[in-house]
Amino acid sequence: MTSTVESIDPRTGRTVESVGTETSSADLEAIVGRAEAAAPAFEAAGRRLRARLLRAVADQLESRRSAVIQVGARETALTEARLGGELTRTVYQARLFADVVEEGGYLEATIDHAGDTPMGSGPDLRRMLVPIGPVAVFGASNFPLAFSVPGGDTVSALAAGCPVVVKAHPSHPATSLLTFEALTAAAQEVGAPDGVLGMVFGQQAGADLVAHPAIRAVSFTGSQSGGRALLEIINARSQPIPFYGELSSLNPVVITAGATAARPQQLAEGLVASVTGSGGQLCTKPGLIFVPSGAEGDVLVEHAAQLVNEAPAATLLNQRISEAYDEISSDLEGLSSLTVVARGCRADGDGFDVAPKLLQVKASDLQDEELEECFGPVAVIARYEAEDLSRALDGLPASLTGTIHAETDETATIQSLTSTFKGKSGRVLYDGWPTGVLVSWAQQHGGPWPSTNTLHTSVGTSAVRRFLRPVTWQNAPAAVLPEELQDSFESIPRRVDGTLVTPRQGG
Amino acid sequence: MTSTVESIDPRTGRTVESVGTETSSADLEAIVGRAEAAAPAFEAAGRRLRARLLRAVADQLESRRSAVIQVGARETALTEARLGGELTRTVYQARLFADVVEEGGYLEATIDHAGDTPMGSGPDLRRMLVPIGPVAVFGASNFPLAFSVPGGDTVSALAAGCPVVVKAHPSHPATSLLTFEALTAAAQEVGAPDGVLGMVFGQQAGADLVAHPAIRAVSFTGSQSGGRALLEIINARSQPIPFYGELSSLNPVVITAGATAARPQQLAEGLVASVTGSGGQLCTKPGLIFVPSGAEGDVLVEHAAQLVNEAPAATLLNQRISEAYDEISSDLEGLSSLTVVARGCRADGDGFDVAPKLLQVKASDLQDEELEECFGPVAVIARYEAEDLSRALDGLPASLTGTIHAETDETATIQSLTSTFKGKSGRVLYDGWPTGVLVSWAQQHGGPWPSTNTLHTSVGTSAVRRFLRPVTWQNAPAAVLPEELQDSFESIPRRVDGTLVTPRQGG
Repeated sequence: MTSTVESIDPRTGRTVESVGTETSSADLEAIVGRAEAAAPAFEAAGRRLRARLLRAVADQLESRRSAVIQVGARETALTEARLGGELTRTVYQARLFADVVEEGGYLEATIDHAGDTPMGSGPDLRRMLVPIGPVAVFGASNFPLAFSVPGGDTVSALAAGCPVVVKAHPSHPATSLLTFEALTAAAQEVGAPDGVLGMVFGQQAGADLVAHPAIRAVSFTGSQSGGRALLEIINARSQPIPFYGELSSLNPVVITAGATAARPQQLAEGLVASVTGSGGQLCTKPGLIFVPSGAEGDVLVEHAAQLVNEAPAATLLNQRISEAYDEISSDLEGLSSLTVVARGCRADGDGFDVAPKLLQVKASDLQDEELEECFGPVAVIARYEAEDLSRALDGLPASLTGTIHAETDETATIQSLTSTFKGKSGRVLYDGWPTGVLVSWAQQHGGPWPSTNTLHTSVGTSAVRRFLRPVTWQNAPAAVLPEELQDSFESIPRRVDGTLVTPRQGG
Repeated sequence: MTSTVESIDPRTGRTVESVGTETSSADLEAIVGRAEAAAPAFEAAGRRLRARLLRAVADQLESRRSAVIQVGARETALTEARLGGELTRTVYQARLFADVVEEGGYLEATIDHAGDTPMGSGPDLRRMLVPIGPVAVFGASNFPLAFSVPGGDTVSALAAGCPVVVKAHPSHPATSLLTFEALTAAAQEVGAPDGVLGMVFGQQAGADLVAHPAIRAVSFTGSQSGGRALLEIINARSQPIPFYGELSSLNPVVITAGATAARPQQLAEGLVASVTGSGGQLCTKPGLIFVPSGAEGDVLVEHAAQLVNEAPAATLLNQRISEAYDEISSDLEGLSSLTVVARGCRADGDGFDVAPKLLQVKASDLQDEELEECFGPVAVIARYEAEDLSRALDGLPASLTGTIHAETDETATIQSLTSTFKGKSGRVLYDGWPTGVLVSWAQQHGGPWPSTNTLHTSVGTSAVRRFLRPVTWQNAPAAVLPEELQDSFESIPRRVDGTLVTPRQGG
């Protein structure tokens, strides 16, 4: 029995086209088999081919720009402006990973020459990171480009030298097909081994992919329950493998008394834009905003409420997200401790439209229900007395981000909030909003559970580390060493006998 | 109900002294509570204190050298020479991690200044690794110093800036107490926060430690079943944490036709020394050695058999290991495909003595039973025809190490074996033996499951990475940044705007 894969218009909830069928287990076996067979040749082809492949991916995506944006907008209800920006980011990301591959520092190449040690004579040891093997990438619903088929997980795995099998997200199958064509065209253009890129459709195929012995790592962006389900499959494997899950994040924001007094309108505008942008469907959406109690805080909240009341309906990505939004946000409204301070429009019709909402609670009354992520255009404002803040923050789960809006002279407050947020998030922001994650060398997108489960990032250049494992060669003949570990090779950063050596100028 | 903790003499199997009682759950709670409370102050004290602490640990261990060796030898039946070497390694390791902390490259400090990007204006982003929090370290039975209370896991966690709670191994409780005294004396000497070091006794205390919400990572060296049990506790936590397990390793060795013909006696001597040293109780003991079939291979095997036949009984570390050795090695002997080619002496008496053994099988007859680690002085020799080798190697589980003995001119064979071993081990050795793992910058001790479950090493300087997590500061005021991320700080390697910058000469 094979089910068809439907592309649905979220504005109407109706199927626009059927784009194929869910992947059968025989097809899955063939796809993973080709990925496994491609792994040694892809690794052996070295860094030059990987950099060329990543640049070709960027060019192929760019050449399909208008088609990708058009299909993506129809299928996700995200705006063309947003998808255009996302494509720019996706293309930039592929090129940046090509730079990372060429720069070579990510290999952590290390040479200890043979010599005397306090434990006797030591051997020649040479260590670097090598590809982990075929990787399963689960596309995310909310970034149909940057976190999906051609997204950060795919390009960082290719940069590492790993074949990739993508599990396409059912919310945007046509976009997935179109962008997968760009990837395979790039692979053909540069002569990458057949099987370096594969894609499967369907929930069963996704589960079978994670269980497949040839798959060596899994990356996933989605719900905490979905992540737990994949972790269970991994734990049941005879050989457990790394699971990189980005699951759930509340992204708390603290607005100090000073900032509240100084710029309430500007803060309200930034807040509402960050909560409602992309229908609130961003992993870094601020879900809980701490605003001081009292008259100055009231001004900020009233302005934010007015903006939310005027906000149009948001069309969410799919039926499940839209229904979950209505259910969770209605449950929140039902709590006696919470009040609804604003509710935007909700369009009529059959689509996945929801109304933006702004809720309010006393920080000292915060309960577990308010500390769970609600995906969509809603936020809870927690009004605090100065003496309650620290305890309320200590009770929060870990997040991807923690944000501080303060005045420059509130130094003790800034120090204390920094210390709190550093302990339970991967990125601490000052006077900005957590949505909008720059792809760069110093980016960190990941934090303690439940925001992610790892010590790594899924955005920025360090994301490549997830798909690499270390190997040391002991007393190896030079002929079998990778070129990066040859004595004469000096064009990447290496640690030699304990000292970090950067490439020769112009070398 | 509290059980006493007994120090047993493995030569007699009898209790020599009682060293205390198993840790109660109230005491465990207090110990972990102190570790949790110490974490912020220990992190804030910065790299200088950590380097001083590690050097003080080295000095305090060195000052107890004769007592530690005497107690350790009595409790483990390892020789004083072996324990003296192990103490030297343990002391060296602590000092090397002090160097790592001072050098600072392990922080991966990265600065991207604000500026224009293809996605618009980008913020100032500064990223580095910070301590993960309190770590649970499970001492290993077979290295009462280097992989136990004062071992690599403890000093790499301290180097990272994490408080450590050690679960003492029941095979050497007196040594654990004595070396823990050295650690706490060092902590007091340098004024480290109270609670930075804790220790618990007892299996229940170990399980409770892994389940405790304040513990942020677990490192463990032991059996695959023990590792699976701890993983189950971690998977049941509301917040899963990283588990660094070193579990089981067969450490295959291939001796080529050329090497067999050129130096059969030397190879036999090296092999038997590596298999029987420390009672065969090393995680890198070669458990399966591929020797060519035919007359030249017979010479090698006969010489090895003679050495094993003459070998004295080995006193193993404890009753469980001794009984498991007898059971597993007897099961192997019972296989119709295997023959016993040598059996050393087995002493009489009540202690944990066992006879070294050498077994032989045709490589084409290898079954799953022969591919499981048997801890103790036994190895299986697999006699191979050239055409059978590759398939036999493909069927092996992953290991910590893979070893090749070849002649220089066997280049194609060396290339092919390198490729095979690189795919399924963390260290590939040439013309040496895998036992004896140098602590250095380029060391790798870890491989795919079941040898370890991680992308990291437990020996060598990179071991520190296991206990660190990344944090990025976005548009932070300089006053809240760690000194390593200040613009003016130039005494550690950093990546600035994409370029790796090493410290100024003399700076």
